[in-house]
Amino acid sequence: MNYCSACGSEVIVKVPGGDHLPRHVCPSCGAVHYQNPKIVVGCVPQEGDRILLCKRAIEPRYGYWTLPAGFMENGETLVEGAARETREEALAEVDIEDLFAVVNVVHAQQVHMLFRARLVGGFGAGDESLEVQLFSEDRVPWDDIAFGSVRYALEKFFEDRREGVQRMHMTALKPMPR
Amino acid sequence: MNYCSACGSEVIVKVPGGDHLPRHVCPSCGAVHYQNPKIVVGCVPQEGDRILLCKRAIEPRYGYWTLPAGFMENGETLVEGAARETREEALAEVDIEDLFAVVNVVHAQQVHMLFRARLVGGFGAGDESLEVQLFSEDRVPWDDIAFGSVRYALEKFFEDRREGVQRMHMTALKPMPR
Repeated sequence: MNYCSACGSEVIVKVPGGDHLPRHVCPSCGAVHYQNPKIVVGCVPQEGDRILLCKRAIEPRYGYWTLPAGFMENGETLVEGAARETREEALAEVDIEDLFAVVNVVHAQQVHMLFRARLVGGFGAGDESLEVQLFSEDRVPWDDIAFGSVRYALEKFFEDRREGVQRMHMTALKPMPR
Repeated sequence: MNYCSACGSEVIVKVPGGDHLPRHVCPSCGAVHYQNPKIVVGCVPQEGDRILLCKRAIEPRYGYWTLPAGFMENGETLVEGAARETREEALAEVDIEDLFAVVNVVHAQQVHMLFRARLVGGFGAGDESLEVQLFSEDRVPWDDIAFGSVRYALEKFFEDRREGVQRMHMTALKPMPR
């Protein structure tokens, strides 16, 4: 951030009065420009004992497999966001169930929130996907999973399913070795 | 948002290529400025059968009671954010336990996430609090609770405690009548 989005003046970095952290502050209009973590919301769409994964058609991690997920938008709930991302990336409708994985991706300034879901009807590759496919647990392409948060969510999803429970899991991830 | 925070040019509102929603876009440098929901993180600090509330010394809702909570910062996890807010507003250390209430406050472009927690040691009024006090369930000032999300979290917290369970609750709130 170099310029004030309110008045266009050059911003400076300082700790505003009453605050405890350095912020981008406009010396001209006084606006404080906070930067906060973003929410990535998605789901594990299930059909019988199989789950739906999308092969990414975009960077980062082009060609790797992921769950339908993306940045939550203003004006929607978490559940609405998870359903929208699934519609966009997998051309699929889902019934969203419970939130089961919350992943702090601190270095990316993101919190990833994944829901269990049921696939309703068909699916296909949206603009951001090369292909979309159902996988049973023993066919999941573990070596080609795009993100640490997706790997964590899938591991916990299958662990819960094997044990016949539905828990909420939370973790913090470090950068994934590439 | 009027100006590009990257180059200082006036932004326009349009749907970028490959996108589906209008965004603030810089016609000069091409930057797309996304605006997404912010996370408010907090906790219910417990000591025995009482819980800690803070009387707000700041707007909005000056003089009303709330749980220690505030905007999650970049560089921290949800749990770290909840503990930090409790330190700032209630001068208290807490052991954060499970996430139990997730509240979509769609009109404010926020998601509120509340944890159960245990108070460790003393407490006092931080800069943003007029006073901080322990309340048993029958003494909670229900008519003077600051926010709908705090009311929801407290209701679910006590409901779970009465039933001897620890569930995860999620809802979407409409603007609170004032």
